Amino acid sequence: MTNNPKTLHLNAFLMSVGHHEAAWRLPESDPRADIDIDHYVRLAQTAERGKFDSIFFADSPVLMGDPGRRPSGKLEPTVILTAVAVQTSRIGLIATASTSYNDPYNLARRFASVDWVSDGRAGWNIVTTAGADAARNFGLDDTPDHKLRYEKAGEFVEVATKLWDSWDDDAIVADKQLGIHADAEKVRKIDHRGRFFKVDGPLNLPRSPQGYPVLVQAGSSEDGKNFAARYAEAVFTAQQTLEDGKAFYTDLKDRARRLGRDPELLKVLPGIVPVIGDTEEHARELDAELARLISPEYARKQLAERFAIPLDEFDLDSELPENLPTEDDIEGAKSRFTLIVNLARRERLTLRELITRLGGGRGHRTFAGTAEQVADTIEEWFREGAADGFNVMPAVLPSGLDRFVDEVVPILQARGLFRTDYTETTLRGHYGLSRPANQYADRLAAAQ
Amino acid sequence: MTNNPKTLHLNAFLMSVGHHEAAWRLPESDPRADIDIDHYVRLAQTAERGKFDSIFFADSPVLMGDPGRRPSGKLEPTVILTAVAVQTSRIGLIATASTSYNDPYNLARRFASVDWVSDGRAGWNIVTTAGADAARNFGLDDTPDHKLRYEKAGEFVEVATKLWDSWDDDAIVADKQLGIHADAEKVRKIDHRGRFFKVDGPLNLPRSPQGYPVLVQAGSSEDGKNFAARYAEAVFTAQQTLEDGKAFYTDLKDRARRLGRDPELLKVLPGIVPVIGDTEEHARELDAELARLISPEYARKQLAERFAIPLDEFDLDSELPENLPTEDDIEGAKSRFTLIVNLARRERLTLRELITRLGGGRGHRTFAGTAEQVADTIEEWFREGAADGFNVMPAVLPSGLDRFVDEVVPILQARGLFRTDYTETTLRGHYGLSRPANQYADRLAAAQ
Repeated sequence: MTNNPKTLHLNAFLMSVGHHEAAWRLPESDPRADIDIDHYVRLAQTAERGKFDSIFFADSPVLMGDPGRRPSGKLEPTVILTAVAVQTSRIGLIATASTSYNDPYNLARRFASVDWVSDGRAGWNIVTTAGADAARNFGLDDTPDHKLRYEKAGEFVEVATKLWDSWDDDAIVADKQLGIHADAEKVRKIDHRGRFFKVDGPLNLPRSPQGYPVLVQAGSSEDGKNFAARYAEAVFTAQQTLEDGKAFYTDLKDRARRLGRDPELLKVLPGIVPVIGDTEEHARELDAELARLISPEYARKQLAERFAIPLDEFDLDSELPENLPTEDDIEGAKSRFTLIVNLARRERLTLRELITRLGGGRGHRTFAGTAEQVADTIEEWFREGAADGFNVMPAVLPSGLDRFVDEVVPILQARGLFRTDYTETTLRGHYGLSRPANQYADRLAAAQ
Repeated sequence: MTNNPKTLHLNAFLMSVGHHEAAWRLPESDPRADIDIDHYVRLAQTAERGKFDSIFFADSPVLMGDPGRRPSGKLEPTVILTAVAVQTSRIGLIATASTSYNDPYNLARRFASVDWVSDGRAGWNIVTTAGADAARNFGLDDTPDHKLRYEKAGEFVEVATKLWDSWDDDAIVADKQLGIHADAEKVRKIDHRGRFFKVDGPLNLPRSPQGYPVLVQAGSSEDGKNFAARYAEAVFTAQQTLEDGKAFYTDLKDRARRLGRDPELLKVLPGIVPVIGDTEEHARELDAELARLISPEYARKQLAERFAIPLDEFDLDSELPENLPTEDDIEGAKSRFTLIVNLARRERLTLRELITRLGGGRGHRTFAGTAEQVADTIEEWFREGAADGFNVMPAVLPSGLDRFVDEVVPILQARGLFRTDYTETTLRGHYGLSRPANQYADRLAAAQ
């Protein structure tokens, strides 16, 4: 056993009726669940029953792909988190929000509000948002340059943490006799003046239960990894092989260490799309059934766009052409691009086969097997130093999450790898992260 | 009886522990209720028990005033509405959001999300946000010019309605057999190109249960009234006297009529701060008790700023000086400024008395009396053509709302002025507003 912490962390990455693009076509699926808040609340309650650390909603402020392909309604994720917060008590609540298409004041306030409403269970997955389509919803013609987006994201996070720290934890005195509600000395302007942002503050909310939400990151490009090493407390990542997973894990922890951070306080959670069957064969059948339901036209169009292959040269029974763009030519999801190219070349997949492989997890690792086998691969990656836990991405919802909670979690618990009950009340507590000190109050205390 | 519709509308305007600035100092008040979501949920449930049309949260993305003065934490209001939505079933849910400090895509999406989560109970109070302090949280040095803010607000609302209409109501076909989730022909880009905004769309949400949220407005300046006449479906307003109330009501309905709108579909709701006692004398004592708890220093500072009176010339026992700025010099809350000047001059109030009068409703009309007297004044304004209903602003929460629901509502119901149960399920239904046609689908249908 490596020097991993003793138990692993599980996040449930929730997406409409499941991560598999064809999940909505199964007889069991409610094709309108994407806009049904009760669906998400029930999923969160199931994850909480399974003692998961957290649930997570990805996001982009744009309609993704052809609305014919799959359920594409996206309730704003802090709205979803709030509805879940008041109907659960322990599970952490993470959502994506963009540093390119939000104002720091509004975003800091919204996540602090969720942290208050949930009594300290909020997490923010920081993304810079790739894609011209999103840019065109915000007055731009194209997505800003990758490096620039990350520079802006860094300053954005600094503004947000300043706002979250703009009230001391003990600012509210609530002295009814004297008529003083808060000590004005302990509430301060931040007067941020940077390259991208000018923000006076203070925030119009006292410091939240966790100090601030857990900072999560999911980019695996060079810029993304450097950003994660500096700011992230948890990282979601796509890794297809144990070897790649170990290399990523080691690299990221090293980067954090070189920046003077304790690498234990940066949790790495690769994605896994578990397809669980009664037998291995049964699981493969379930996977194949989903694959048969993929509409090849939508998938073909998307692959052609991703790899810049003219549609009329696109042969489903050939491998990826030799002459592809490089990662440098790609403006977003850079590492995902490379991961997919490597997967296709390593396994010599035809485009038809590649479509099938991407249908479940869009580049995340699909694993079809029994509950025992799923637990085995989780344990292997955890013990081998490729993961502090997993970003569990059920192919079909709710059934895939039910099955994971009912069958895989008890095995992990029996092996001593996962909590049998919550011991903490906040998301920071579940992930073993401490409450951050207040950068202003601390500085004052140190000066005294 | 005038040609008012038969029954009136009641909105509960909720603010921490009450609208009176000293409410938090009462023994009964929880001084941390401003950041306690359960407090707001309980208030909403009380309003729903009283069959109110709606609840409402004001907002500004800035810390308002000295944090010593009163509870100043402001949970982001769509977060509050969401928590309330999933714990109530009928009451309408209105929140303020700024057209100056939001992107139309994000805001349209957030309100559509609340409309989905609440099954059609969302309303948006459209504000342009005055004040340099707010501007300085968003990279600006000062608040944009009043007229410009309203021009931008008009275009903002047009972008938002285009986004809300970007999906036809019947766009989702969910054909599992054919593998087609939505009819792509019924989901369209909006390709908005305006003076202030460039937004491609479509929204990443199907059209919401109400089509779009009820549009509310609360500015009473010339620009504000013209904006309301064009866009608003409900208007909150501050009116101190029946005469002023009638004049405003008639003026606003006329403006709407001149724009070709049915004035019945623009509901006018003046604010009232009811202080309810067992006897009239008891009510006056409650009001006086609250007035005694006002900290004069905070109030003095705020009045001095509002009227540009140097603090060292500020005499609490004198009337307002003659030489004041005019409404034209004021960048925000223009009509509120004039209302307060008129109130002070009409009643020859000393500054000390003015502070007392503003402590409860910040310019809204405070009415201290028995439940019967409160019902009488509501009925009078309603029958005389000064109101379609009221924006009820309890001085102390929760007790002021409890008392209104338990004592005033039954009188209004007994007089046939107010519903005894909900007959509709949406906010539009409660207010007697129809579901808006889709500007795109309608145009197509008309062309066929």
